[in-house]
Amino acid sequence: MITIQGFRFSGVSAGIKKKPGALDLGLLVADEPVPTAALFTRNLVRAGPVQISERRLLQQQGWAQACLVNSGTANACTGQRGLAATLSSTAAVAHALGVNEERVLPASTGVIGEVLPTEKVATALPALITGLHPEAASTFAEAILTTDRWIKTATAAIEGQDEDGNSQTAQLLAIGKGAGMFHPDVGLAGELPQPDGTGFDADLSGLHATMLVFIVTDAVASQETLAAALDRAADRTFNAATVDGDTSTNDSVYLMASGRSGLSVTTDQLTDALMEACGHLARSMVRDGEGADHLVQLVVRGLPTDAAARDIARTVATSPLVKTALAGKDANWGRLLAAAGRAGVPFDPSQSSIYIDDICICKDGQPVDLQADQNASQRMKSEFYPIELILGSGPGEFSYLTCDLGHGYVDINAGYRS
Amino acid sequence: MITIQGFRFSGVSAGIKKKPGALDLGLLVADEPVPTAALFTRNLVRAGPVQISERRLLQQQGWAQACLVNSGTANACTGQRGLAATLSSTAAVAHALGVNEERVLPASTGVIGEVLPTEKVATALPALITGLHPEAASTFAEAILTTDRWIKTATAAIEGQDEDGNSQTAQLLAIGKGAGMFHPDVGLAGELPQPDGTGFDADLSGLHATMLVFIVTDAVASQETLAAALDRAADRTFNAATVDGDTSTNDSVYLMASGRSGLSVTTDQLTDALMEACGHLARSMVRDGEGADHLVQLVVRGLPTDAAARDIARTVATSPLVKTALAGKDANWGRLLAAAGRAGVPFDPSQSSIYIDDICICKDGQPVDLQADQNASQRMKSEFYPIELILGSGPGEFSYLTCDLGHGYVDINAGYRS
Repeated sequence: MITIQGFRFSGVSAGIKKKPGALDLGLLVADEPVPTAALFTRNLVRAGPVQISERRLLQQQGWAQACLVNSGTANACTGQRGLAATLSSTAAVAHALGVNEERVLPASTGVIGEVLPTEKVATALPALITGLHPEAASTFAEAILTTDRWIKTATAAIEGQDEDGNSQTAQLLAIGKGAGMFHPDVGLAGELPQPDGTGFDADLSGLHATMLVFIVTDAVASQETLAAALDRAADRTFNAATVDGDTSTNDSVYLMASGRSGLSVTTDQLTDALMEACGHLARSMVRDGEGADHLVQLVVRGLPTDAAARDIARTVATSPLVKTALAGKDANWGRLLAAAGRAGVPFDPSQSSIYIDDICICKDGQPVDLQADQNASQRMKSEFYPIELILGSGPGEFSYLTCDLGHGYVDINAGYRS
Repeated sequence: MITIQGFRFSGVSAGIKKKPGALDLGLLVADEPVPTAALFTRNLVRAGPVQISERRLLQQQGWAQACLVNSGTANACTGQRGLAATLSSTAAVAHALGVNEERVLPASTGVIGEVLPTEKVATALPALITGLHPEAASTFAEAILTTDRWIKTATAAIEGQDEDGNSQTAQLLAIGKGAGMFHPDVGLAGELPQPDGTGFDADLSGLHATMLVFIVTDAVASQETLAAALDRAADRTFNAATVDGDTSTNDSVYLMASGRSGLSVTTDQLTDALMEACGHLARSMVRDGEGADHLVQLVVRGLPTDAAARDIARTVATSPLVKTALAGKDANWGRLLAAAGRAGVPFDPSQSSIYIDDICICKDGQPVDLQADQNASQRMKSEFYPIELILGSGPGEFSYLTCDLGHGYVDINAGYRS
């Protein structure tokens, strides 16, 4: 596993998950307080750890030093007891690390309604601290998984010149998890929707899923650069990916920069690198969508604006009839076009074409022929393929990731919470 | 079957459906041209029969005399050939009935991409005409079904006094079909969304589903009264019901008034009667949702406005995680509250309560206890039960019908078009 100068990782089994020995507690530590940006779910209902992380980041003006992450429980819908558990656990970690507890950011994912077991965290803490190592990112990556079938990491590099004019490379490592209750809609800390009225401390989470992402880089970047680049990259990657359309209450994305490479990066450079790494992670997450067998890149083109294309792409990507057709390998342009038509965005159906990979199955709003349908259906056996909706001649386009909805999804989500 | 003065019905097998002998062609005829109102899908992509019906109704200023309905093909995505087929079929019916063909309204539901077989319609026409009878509404009701498991009819009565002061009763009969691609969003003819640009004649339909409703009454009412009452009633019934969130391209609702009872009705009276009949039909359709075992009345209360409550209700009612939880009889208040939180409507989760029937499973944004969950889970074995989300203390509320999403839905919709 790649190392990023200035960061260490750890992951242990604390017994939070029911499965004995399963890794369920992760720690990411910077050698010193570093500029940090974060995006949190725009769901109005936000879990306690999300609330605490957002408040700390804002109060510390974007400086942080560690992330404490558990899987197994979302510590959600647990009221003041849950908040107290998160606060005491991050305090214990801060004490053990010798850092300001306000600079330890908590994140949780897992079963709803169960308080984070602070005793288990305390018991596991020595091993968690001892295990910290620059090369332990994959252990950390495993410790944050829930229904995920595999760990998810991605890297990117930024080439440039340092202050002395020497060629220099900054590295970036992104670690994520996510497979269900997956329809990220994350926004910058401090810019999230608020309930109308007095402060609310509710903390209700999803289920076993949620998207969590931790990105570290040794680039030199200000908090403002990190935030701007992360926001832009997320809008084209995580916020353009769906498994089931259900935005979780715990979604969080962190970006920390140690500056150890000595290479100052621009917002554009950092955005490009983040697009690469976050795009990779988003594909891995949707491919790992609960019960899914197919990852589909849905591209909508020809609209007046990208925003119009995005609205249509989102509607098509979350349509149950489209997603069951993907499961059935049914080149069902009728469902695709019908879903586009209910997105509330004007376009001319009689000027519309639809492609599965490079096979045109609908031209000028009418079917091509049975052979095209059959060829496309064959193509839909692939693990990954693109679908393109060309709905006019405008410059607006948007790409969205989605997956099929089959029996596997029902198996996972129609069972009683276990 | 109840009769409504001034109307006759018929239904025959024309061989449009693949199953031999299945009824697939229906005809509804008024004794003379009568005031008629209609609602059509707000999907931008509208099937040819919908376009023809809307145009005719507008040109005839709301006067019509017959509805020709076929199941088996939506006659959609068939371009000019499909439009021509619909035009020639309604012309043949008009000729046989001796009525103005502009006053024959077509409707189709069924498989996409297949042209309405005009020869089969022509061959079946004599039997269709011969079969017309005031008591044949249930035969008509059967002829318009697709994946529906049962015919759907409902009645209502309006009591009042006629011009001479005598007690009088007007009767209303509603006949419908719908089971999948079911998320009606119907608006008045002439008020439907249009593509930006020149006239579009695309006609793309859904699949095997769509909602079609035909309502006849012997009340005396103007076209304006019919339209206003139908629009109001639909917004609280059909437009507040979902199976899969996928609005069809063929959804149509017709209301015709013969005036034969001699009883003039007000918009309010008619709205009440329509609410009763349409509410019954909507429940029957969602209960018949593809693969569904449970009909759920989702009530959202406590918001500032009904519109806010509706936005939340719609989001919760279409959430895949909520709908799979219903299939699993899982009293999963976490998914319910998380879905509410992503609706884009402010509310205070810490002031929120959730009930399954009369069992409180979430109070002040936190779980009640395991016993409540278990009791609620038992209650969720019912074929029909209410779920109530109380999200504040405001006066706004909205009721939405939804159903569970289980393996049956995947079985029906993940198969290749057949």
